[in-house]
Amino acid sequence: MQKNVKLTIEYKGSNYLGWQIQPDGKTVQGELQSAIKSITGEDVNLIGSGRTDAGVHAYGQVANFITDSKIEAIRLPAAINSQLPKDISVKKVEYVDDDFHSRFSAKGKKYRYRIYNSKNRSALDYEYSYHIGYRLDLDLMKDQAEKLIGSHDFTSFVSSGSTSKSNVRTIYSLDLKKEGDYIIIDIEGDGFLYNMVRIITGTLIDIARGRITRSMDEIIERRDRSLAGHTAPAHGLYLYEVYYD
Amino acid sequence: MQKNVKLTIEYKGSNYLGWQIQPDGKTVQGELQSAIKSITGEDVNLIGSGRTDAGVHAYGQVANFITDSKIEAIRLPAAINSQLPKDISVKKVEYVDDDFHSRFSAKGKKYRYRIYNSKNRSALDYEYSYHIGYRLDLDLMKDQAEKLIGSHDFTSFVSSGSTSKSNVRTIYSLDLKKEGDYIIIDIEGDGFLYNMVRIITGTLIDIARGRITRSMDEIIERRDRSLAGHTAPAHGLYLYEVYYD
Repeated sequence: MQKNVKLTIEYKGSNYLGWQIQPDGKTVQGELQSAIKSITGEDVNLIGSGRTDAGVHAYGQVANFITDSKIEAIRLPAAINSQLPKDISVKKVEYVDDDFHSRFSAKGKKYRYRIYNSKNRSALDYEYSYHIGYRLDLDLMKDQAEKLIGSHDFTSFVSSGSTSKSNVRTIYSLDLKKEGDYIIIDIEGDGFLYNMVRIITGTLIDIARGRITRSMDEIIERRDRSLAGHTAPAHGLYLYEVYYD
Repeated sequence: MQKNVKLTIEYKGSNYLGWQIQPDGKTVQGELQSAIKSITGEDVNLIGSGRTDAGVHAYGQVANFITDSKIEAIRLPAAINSQLPKDISVKKVEYVDDDFHSRFSAKGKKYRYRIYNSKNRSALDYEYSYHIGYRLDLDLMKDQAEKLIGSHDFTSFVSSGSTSKSNVRTIYSLDLKKEGDYIIIDIEGDGFLYNMVRIITGTLIDIARGRITRSMDEIIERRDRSLAGHTAPAHGLYLYEVYYD
């Protein structure tokens, strides 16, 4: 009997071209499919909840595949992990209903962005955070971030190259907090456009350092990418969690 | 006029043969001396507070050098960092008295060891922690760790290859705490023997999983390396701070 297997996956994106299989170069999906093949003998079609770009990390990416394999779910993480490089790890395996689809069944996602806000750059964390050397005004960032919550047309916050038909998305929550020298941004929403979290982060930083003086309300309303801030780099971004019913 | 410059340095040890310059291969001291040369033009003798082994990280290594350079201390971190690889960063620069010597003036050190205690390994943190997949009994570890505090002959906890004349050292404090899936071990002492923190960590783990049933008291007393536990790997260890008057 075929089973539908759901994986929760952690990865460090630094050494990959991103999630999705490419003709050339290493991808997370490619490494996982190879590992699954060496365990089950099957060429599975591993469906991810969505792509992550080159360099973006995941704390809780979700993917599923159909298998005839009879390996117990509880043995699968260790079995698959033994075939994976060290910067990819399957954290959890569950058997799910036939109609579960990592992408179509997803109700929302949470992303995290980590800013290292200290005068001198971090050596230990250089692949895991975005260094900003001047002091950022967290209260100002929080004020402006609040305006993004709710349903909006996020055209100002999408990179060219997006293939989405509609740019309307709903942000459920957007929290900023200070943890030591870090500013942590947590964003939950029903879905995110291409580079949306990175452009939101860049815009909040540019507002906090006075490079942007327009209000977030105006930037949203005008639907013009050139009014928003820079695209914060991939290495500060984490796909943190994918929500299902 | 010559100045004595004290550096506080953070580094990720993964890609280095350790602190001390070697005839072949990359070392942290070597990278720093090259960076200082390109800023000051001088071949300085950079004195570290002590060596760290290949793969060991530092949050707060200290080193000093004598210079004729007139660059202001406040400008030095950014200047030196611009010449360093991303996994080494000078966090702080101070001018200190002529008689300050990073090694001889040090009054003590703090090391941190990070254990990732979760069933499946971490992909994001694989270079920064030691994965132990079975549940460790933290209370038992704390009980036994306490016996190490104070002045003891730590012969049971030193690797062969140590060149120390005396194996007597004083541990001021040894704290274990749980943070999410991590067990963090913080050790402060007047000095540490070769691999001492890694062997203490390995012994605490081996006690917690029942591989060692002797008490820590007996292991200390017998002065026999074979009675202590395994040497925990370098990549979980951080030189956290060096103390001076």
